[in-house]
Amino acid sequence: MQIDNLLKQVDFIKEIDKLKYIQRKTKLFNSDRHENDAEHSWHLAMMTIVLAEHANKPIDVLKVMKMVLIHDIVEIDAGDTFIYDTQKNHSNTEQERIAAKRIFGILPAEQAEEFIAIWEEFEEGKTDDAKFAKSMDRFEPLLQNTSNNGGTWSEFNVSYQKVYHKKKAIKEGSSSIWNYAENLLNESVKNGILKT
Amino acid sequence: MQIDNLLKQVDFIKEIDKLKYIQRKTKLFNSDRHENDAEHSWHLAMMTIVLAEHANKPIDVLKVMKMVLIHDIVEIDAGDTFIYDTQKNHSNTEQERIAAKRIFGILPAEQAEEFIAIWEEFEEGKTDDAKFAKSMDRFEPLLQNTSNNGGTWSEFNVSYQKVYHKKKAIKEGSSSIWNYAENLLNESVKNGILKT
Repeated sequence: MQIDNLLKQVDFIKEIDKLKYIQRKTKLFNSDRHENDAEHSWHLAMMTIVLAEHANKPIDVLKVMKMVLIHDIVEIDAGDTFIYDTQKNHSNTEQERIAAKRIFGILPAEQAEEFIAIWEEFEEGKTDDAKFAKSMDRFEPLLQNTSNNGGTWSEFNVSYQKVYHKKKAIKEGSSSIWNYAENLLNESVKNGILKT
Repeated sequence: MQIDNLLKQVDFIKEIDKLKYIQRKTKLFNSDRHENDAEHSWHLAMMTIVLAEHANKPIDVLKVMKMVLIHDIVEIDAGDTFIYDTQKNHSNTEQERIAAKRIFGILPAEQAEEFIAIWEEFEEGKTDDAKFAKSMDRFEPLLQNTSNNGGTWSEFNVSYQKVYHKKKAIKEGSSSIWNYAENLLNESVKNGILKT
């Protein structure tokens, strides 16, 4: 049984290597190089460890780390959707649900169920853990864009109002990080790297 | 106080972005593209979640995940040392200790101490948590090299004996993963991708 599990787990470990090829729209800090989903997921896990004290409500740090580490794995099949893409709903599409079933389904049944449940909890964004995980996912590209002279905001001509609308989800996870983030957005408008 | 902490934490989050530029010798699965340290750390964290049940002794999964996520951060200053480099001792050099102090020292004092302690525990490799973390760190490149027709073993002409000597650390963390890994090494010799 343990050996059966190990074989499935090794298959899964090989499969998720593909996350390193999924390019995001955002770029690394002070850089022209696009970030990939594996790098992004690592960074969110680091942010979760480091910033957990700022959560509005007590969070289960291990659970949130699992969330951010796996949250983009469905993009191996479904691809990265740009958060400001108005043609396509960003979250939890049917395509992503099928991807979750296929990819997490490589694991032993009990683990597959756990991973799908964690991914769905993240996507729904209703629990305190999911809210904090989402706030990490919104905060990282904000920091990247401000370091990159507006980054994707300038590149794709995204307005302050649209950015604000997406970023205010940070507040649900952490009021203190939101205070900091809101200031950064206001400064970005003043500096002309984010247009109203 | 919380704001003071947040400012330091954001500085740290920006600093560690540099891990994405540190290239390892090993390459992605079935690929010619080198892996970077951030991708590697993400993959080890995923392996830790997925393979924890195979640990010889009960482990603190959150602690092990922190270990593998931060274990290479010192390479931002110290650079990646190839595990089969005979000129240079791989682990815990003076240069790495200075790097740990500088980089983790960007964090608030209490967190800096926690991170340095976790990194040292990993490097010493004596606790059950550190042994399991090390076994993840040895297992990933073994899987990568077998997928890449010998990978760094062929490229740098590393013998079975040398590989075996490094890889047997996996056994300290997990006998069942070691059984699997040892078989892979024997098969690699048979297939001619690892020379005795």
